[in-house]
Amino acid sequence: MAHFMDVHHGMHGVTSDQLQKAHQADLALEKDEDVHFEHAWADPDSGTVFCLSEAPSADAVQRVHERAGHKADEIHEVPLSA
Amino acid sequence: MAHFMDVHHGMHGVTSDQLQKAHQADLALEKDEDVHFEHAWADPDSGTVFCLSEAPSADAVQRVHERAGHKADEIHEVPLSA
Repeated sequence: MAHFMDVHHGMHGVTSDQLQKAHQADLALEKDEDVHFEHAWADPDSGTVFCLSEAPSADAVQRVHERAGHKADEIHEVPLSA
Repeated sequence: MAHFMDVHHGMHGVTSDQLQKAHQADLALEKDEDVHFEHAWADPDSGTVFCLSEAPSADAVQRVHERAGHKADEIHEVPLSA
């Protein structure tokens, strides 16, 4: 298992309710791919959403996001943290 | 106080030791700006570093990073999280 930070662009004006619902949609599907979405952060002004997850691969992260209806624009494996 | 996610590009091949030292440099300076750097994650392959902080402003975050020698390329206020 590895950690990933994925990034969604173009989410201008995203609301707290929309972020919660999107995150819940990921959580409802993640077990199928052995992924766990740990946290999501959103900047409504620039339309950027960051999601931190633990997963077997970037492809597994993307499959959950795609099935939940919000494909990621970037997925970075982040093996280093401080 | 607000939360910020800042992003550094071009950090290809960053090592765990380099990330720890950079984070420690931020921690050593952050009090001057009333900032706290909570966590940093790095993807050495794409050269991307993400830093999560709590701070009074994006400018305060940048001042700490600049003094520590690693100016951020993007600073996103992230008022929403899930």
